[in-house]
Amino acid sequence: MGKGIKFTVAMGIVALFGCIQLGCEQPGVKKEVTASPQVEAKTVVAKQPEVSAPAGEKEAESCRAVKKEETASHPKDKRTIQQIISELTGEKIGPDNSGDLYHAGLTATYTGPEEVFPGEGKFGKLFKFLPIIRWYDPDHYYTPNLNVSGEFKHEECVMCHTVQTPGIVAQWKKSKHASTEKGVVGCDKCHGNNHQQLYMPSWKHCGECHPEQQAGHRAGKIGSHTHAFHVSVVEATWQISKPEAEVTACATCHGIAENRCDGCHTRHDFSLAEARKPNNCGICHTGLDHYEYEMYRESYHGMIYESEQHTWDWSKPLKPANYKTPTCAFCHMKDGEHNAQKASTINSHMGTSLVDRGAPKFKESRQNWINTCKGCHSPRFAADQFEAMDEAVKISFTKWREAMKIVTDLYNDGMLDPMPNDLAPDYAGHYTFSLLGGEGRMFNVSDIERTSFEMLVYITNAVYKAMAHGAMYGATYGKGAFLQDRWLIQIKGEASRLRRIRALEDQVGIKHKAYDFWKHGEYTDMLLGWKRKPGDTDKTQCNHEGENCLAE
Amino acid sequence: MGKGIKFTVAMGIVALFGCIQLGCEQPGVKKEVTASPQVEAKTVVAKQPEVSAPAGEKEAESCRAVKKEETASHPKDKRTIQQIISELTGEKIGPDNSGDLYHAGLTATYTGPEEVFPGEGKFGKLFKFLPIIRWYDPDHYYTPNLNVSGEFKHEECVMCHTVQTPGIVAQWKKSKHASTEKGVVGCDKCHGNNHQQLYMPSWKHCGECHPEQQAGHRAGKIGSHTHAFHVSVVEATWQISKPEAEVTACATCHGIAENRCDGCHTRHDFSLAEARKPNNCGICHTGLDHYEYEMYRESYHGMIYESEQHTWDWSKPLKPANYKTPTCAFCHMKDGEHNAQKASTINSHMGTSLVDRGAPKFKESRQNWINTCKGCHSPRFAADQFEAMDEAVKISFTKWREAMKIVTDLYNDGMLDPMPNDLAPDYAGHYTFSLLGGEGRMFNVSDIERTSFEMLVYITNAVYKAMAHGAMYGATYGKGAFLQDRWLIQIKGEASRLRRIRALEDQVGIKHKAYDFWKHGEYTDMLLGWKRKPGDTDKTQCNHEGENCLAE
Amino acid sequence: MGKGIKFTVAMGIVALFGCIQLGCEQPGVKKEVTASPQVEAKTVVAKQPEVSAPAGEKEAESCRAVKKEETASHPKDKRTIQQIISELTGEKIGPDNSGDLYHAGLTATYTGPEEVFPGEGKFGKLFKFLPIIRWYDPDHYYTPNLNVSGEFKHEECVMCHTVQTPGIVAQWKKSKHASTEKGVVGCDKCHGNNHQQLYMPSWKHCGECHPEQQAGHRAGKIGSHTHAFHVSVVEATWQISKPEAEVTACATCHGIAENRCDGCHTRHDFSLAEARKPNNCGICHTGLDHYEYEMYRESYHGMIYESEQHTWDWSKPLKPANYKTPTCAFCHMKDGEHNAQKASTINSHMGTSLVDRGAPKFKESRQNWINTCKGCHSPRFAADQFEAMDEAVKISFTKWREAMKIVTDLYNDGMLDPMPNDLAPDYAGHYTFSLLGGEGRMFNVSDIERTSFEMLVYITNAVYKAMAHGAMYGATYGKGAFLQDRWLIQIKGEASRLRRIRALEDQVGIKHKAYDFWKHGEYTDMLLGWKRKPGDTDKTQCNHEGENCLAE
Repeated sequence: MGKGIKFTVAMGIVALFGCIQLGCEQPGVKKEVTASPQVEAKTVVAKQPEVSAPAGEKEAESCRAVKKEETASHPKDKRTIQQIISELTGEKIGPDNSGDLYHAGLTATYTGPEEVFPGEGKFGKLFKFLPIIRWYDPDHYYTPNLNVSGEFKHEECVMCHTVQTPGIVAQWKKSKHASTEKGVVGCDKCHGNNHQQLYMPSWKHCGECHPEQQAGHRAGKIGSHTHAFHVSVVEATWQISKPEAEVTACATCHGIAENRCDGCHTRHDFSLAEARKPNNCGICHTGLDHYEYEMYRESYHGMIYESEQHTWDWSKPLKPANYKTPTCAFCHMKDGEHNAQKASTINSHMGTSLVDRGAPKFKESRQNWINTCKGCHSPRFAADQFEAMDEAVKISFTKWREAMKIVTDLYNDGMLDPMPNDLAPDYAGHYTFSLLGGEGRMFNVSDIERTSFEMLVYITNAVYKAMAHGAMYGATYGKGAFLQDRWLIQIKGEASRLRRIRALEDQVGIKHKAYDFWKHGEYTDMLLGWKRKPGDTDKTQCNHEGENCLAE
Repeated sequence: MGKGIKFTVAMGIVALFGCIQLGCEQPGVKKEVTASPQVEAKTVVAKQPEVSAPAGEKEAESCRAVKKEETASHPKDKRTIQQIISELTGEKIGPDNSGDLYHAGLTATYTGPEEVFPGEGKFGKLFKFLPIIRWYDPDHYYTPNLNVSGEFKHEECVMCHTVQTPGIVAQWKKSKHASTEKGVVGCDKCHGNNHQQLYMPSWKHCGECHPEQQAGHRAGKIGSHTHAFHVSVVEATWQISKPEAEVTACATCHGIAENRCDGCHTRHDFSLAEARKPNNCGICHTGLDHYEYEMYRESYHGMIYESEQHTWDWSKPLKPANYKTPTCAFCHMKDGEHNAQKASTINSHMGTSLVDRGAPKFKESRQNWINTCKGCHSPRFAADQFEAMDEAVKISFTKWREAMKIVTDLYNDGMLDPMPNDLAPDYAGHYTFSLLGGEGRMFNVSDIERTSFEMLVYITNAVYKAMAHGAMYGATYGKGAFLQDRWLIQIKGEASRLRRIRALEDQVGIKHKAYDFWKHGEYTDMLLGWKRKPGDTDKTQCNHEGENCLAE
Repeated sequence: MGKGIKFTVAMGIVALFGCIQLGCEQPGVKKEVTASPQVEAKTVVAKQPEVSAPAGEKEAESCRAVKKEETASHPKDKRTIQQIISELTGEKIGPDNSGDLYHAGLTATYTGPEEVFPGEGKFGKLFKFLPIIRWYDPDHYYTPNLNVSGEFKHEECVMCHTVQTPGIVAQWKKSKHASTEKGVVGCDKCHGNNHQQLYMPSWKHCGECHPEQQAGHRAGKIGSHTHAFHVSVVEATWQISKPEAEVTACATCHGIAENRCDGCHTRHDFSLAEARKPNNCGICHTGLDHYEYEMYRESYHGMIYESEQHTWDWSKPLKPANYKTPTCAFCHMKDGEHNAQKASTINSHMGTSLVDRGAPKFKESRQNWINTCKGCHSPRFAADQFEAMDEAVKISFTKWREAMKIVTDLYNDGMLDPMPNDLAPDYAGHYTFSLLGGEGRMFNVSDIERTSFEMLVYITNAVYKAMAHGAMYGATYGKGAFLQDRWLIQIKGEASRLRRIRALEDQVGIKHKAYDFWKHGEYTDMLLGWKRKPGDTDKTQCNHEGENCLAE
């Protein structure tokens, strides 16, 4: 920030854009303005609202009026913002894989990755992977490195890799695999012998020796590790509708969870103690959408874990008498159950759907949870805690519904700015109201829709997870109720602004048309709606004229 | 997100709300719109600003005008948003204790908890608890479980509970209570012998054997653990004015702190080592309102604690020569002092009131703090750190006052949107400006008031706590000064928008009336102002006509 | 919040400001209003937009009109907000070093620190330090304590300081310095013998015995520890342009990093094990601007570190075979290299400038990084991870450029509210557009500029750091891509509001003038632009009339 070089640049811009900045009283400066580039002049003109000029304004000849004429006199200036800034600053424009440094990135252009993998499944044609995903779904995408050839025995692998990758050899040597009673589980057991046909092991390979764990890992329903990738990602709209580089991180966690065992038992020591602790779980089960880790860590359970875990004997099974506090696996993989979903009450889409988990129909499940707590707590205490959770969740939904009514009223009154039709179409070519049956997405929507999305997906979920894990701060002013209050106020504030502005426009005869920047822009144009290739769409499948709908 | 089923739903909504979304050029679609439900049509009409139509608009016959007529033709459609969505999506409406899953919660209705406890004290009639609170204020609310009868000796308790709740038995066995020189402190000592008259121990019971600690724990003034619950919660407006399920988490921490000893010495090992560490303190002393834990953890003290605490001998007293860095108790409960407030300089309402802690009148207290630091630091170094804290706090208040002036000007000019009168009344039936002598609340206020609230309560407090604990990141761009800059800018931005819109309305003759959603809504109607029962209010106590004031 | 005393105050305010709050229908109340103070009445009048009253409004005689007259009848009320609140609440106004408590700080006035140090370098005259900085740049600013006199040998220091500062003596006794083979490194070695001429050691003193480490520490270029303070702070606009108390925390980290060795090897045990761990690094390398610590901690590396570090032998060198996961120093100070910048690819201003780190010209550097990963990972795996990072960074810049175009269009159309000219001048007396060649600052700008700033500085940087350290949550919905989506939506929303309001103003003949609160206010007036003393400025160096430019 604020290096000497930028100072000079600033001066240049001040001179060139002087009229706007200093007013029009300085004729000498105005001259320069005439020559100054207007950023995408045509677009600016298009943004003027359709107004019938009132009598009162005709005699007004302001600086702005002059400026408009100047704008009009450059109707063919179609330079991008990159080109204009480049001229002003002397920075190069070029493909950004040049390795050149672009200050603040303004003069760079985007060059995509050289290689991507096609996805599979229903929407495979729309879903692309960066190569890193070959490691997270090795059964489908991994291809061996062809640089080394030959067949090797375990001992030979170790010899060479003690030099090549000493860390994993050292880890393996500490593992049970290095000294199992049934014989050493060597490199070749999991990766093969032919170096040009090496493979990365998925759950299928681990399952050969660990069939019980495999059975648990594969037994989940929708929303479980079992389907974290091929249902939840490969065919998920949130993954399809954004550029692949932006959702690689999503696919990583989802891929590890479904396809590999070393998400929890990290290679190459595959330590049981490690998997008993909450930390590894926290890599994926964290943040806005699924706050499990934070909420656990904020609770007494998590705080005592952090304070004392180094004094506990982690070679012992996760039983109440062995540990002062539970960890993730203690409750969710009780007695080594590898179907973590088995203990769940119900899949509520990460807490975004409302359900009373304390209802009579879930009595058995609730009792199972109480029994889990009963290792250390009175069943009544546990039941009271769960009731407090149930009630807090319900309250959070009333707040969201209050907000939702306000936003839906705006939608029904045509007052969202922009309305769905004014946005870039979604992944399927539709212009659907995101919050009512649409994607419920958090991008390519109006400001108020985004806030509504957060009120639901980020907050009701946080309240639920906080109360379920005993995180008092998370449930209230941290990430829960009091934050939701804020979103509600912001939604009301924005609704009021939108309605007041519309009433004014109606009064003076302006018909506002949503600005073009909602539909187009350097990033927005990368969203799938604009990128679809001819073969991907089928007009006969569209419900409305002019759309390019997804060929399913 | 984006499952197949929702897609179909989306299509249905697009068809039904087609006119709004697609414009009115498609007659076939318009037909459906005529039949389409308008969300609470009457309310929408009520929201129109009172305008005298200008000449220019009379000939305009837009799609919106058509829509208004349609709306008007359904004047008796009083369906709630739940009913409308329910019809569109085919989802059931019902009491949410059915256990049915409501997608995004829109079609669910709220059913309150079956049982609540009445509060005590001045506002007891307004203050309700969920049953979980019986555990956090056992002296007032705990009732024993009647399922088991009989009188038992300690040995018998242990026998049965080794099976029933093995964790706490194992913890107890590790505790000093299991092998105290003065005789075993068994289950019955703290809980009684008659299983139908069991009690949960409060500080009163612990104090029987630990009188010195009890004396410290009870010696605090306002703002201390001693009064954390019965003054700060039971009679606190922030607790009274919201639905009980939403503030249960608040009451939990406040209840534990005042009423129980195992908030710090968690059951059933009651470990001294645990209480010496900062983690347990962090369960309550965390987040926006009281950032002690985060700020400690961000500092050198906290970082070194995290890095090395597992190598320290926690059986030693908290003395400089025994530990490389201090913990919470090291400074705030020096030499085992159980009145944590004793070391405090002054109670400034969690940092929300401005005070110069370096003033001559606090010289002794400041010197005490410097002496605490002096275990490892030069007194001059400590004094300089405290001065930096003093100055940073003062600056943060100047920023808040600048914002406050802007908001107060809006209030004085009647330009807040909404004004206090346009909001749901507060817990006492009043319509008071929240920021000037009002509750200073963060809900049921205008957007700009909420931001002002955060600037004060969240930021000045964070700056203070950060500087006091040596958290450099927290004091600046993390949670402090630079974030406060942002709030100030947002307040100015909103003030400008409100004034510009009002100036426009004045110019064209619109008298804006705050929209009804500020006063009513599914959640807002639960706030105490609307829930008051006849006996709770007394019109003779009101200062203004039309109010329903709290009968004290 | 909400204590009894405030309640009374609220009543008083309600009575005094009654008209505004209750409407003007109550004559009895109006009387009081006439006498009520209008906050800085003159200012309020100045804020009215310049409008030519339309015919339609002339007959309107609203409550507001009455209020305006009242306002006009107090043209000489120049009381500050402090004075008015003081009268209402009965709280004192005074210098805040009185030690009195000011509720919510509203009636306090600011009194600066008694002593500050002048800065050095080009902008030294503008840069002031609080005394705490003498500890963080001891070579320039430290002055010894004169309270104790005499010359002492190491043994004598220890004798006295075992009582005075027992912690550091205990720490020193555990250090290598207490038992080095080459002789004890005692107190006097680092601090001198004459107590009135004691010094605080900087890297220069440590370097006497540790020349190799010193050489590394001094070998960095811009952006390294070597220049963290004297280039990055003493001459940095972000430091100069704010009150010193507000940026003391910044200067602390920057000062420690450049000037002292005990930022990483904390005194007085100077533990090697400590410096090998990531925690100390995290004190500075944290948060919005430089998210290294958080991103490491969120990754598998960091999670495994937290889970297992207590079982590792930290006396061993940081080699792959010795530790399951790397720490900061493992990768960035490989083989003990004390120039942490040596391993860096390129200095991109903390990620705020766009560069393709995978470009051919950086092949060697990339290969070095891959070799670092190769201790445990396949080189292809590492390369794929880096590619994913490259692509995610590029995408984040497209989003920022899209936002930047929207804001620049507003600037070019004169629609920013406020425009640069309407703000307090920057540190150099200029009114420069902050985002194009200006300071890129986050305060003293319009709301939309701040959001743009965050999109760049907080988010592109977070995406980069997240992907570089394997933090999947941080890269997406935590602190990265999905948050940037939100900023983009907010910028579009604000741009739309600004354009719609302007179109309305044009239509009805209002020329909006930015409100005065953008330029002045209790805090804003402290920004350097208004504080400059005569000798600091030189009108001949200004580019534009009326400015007071910095004399360089």
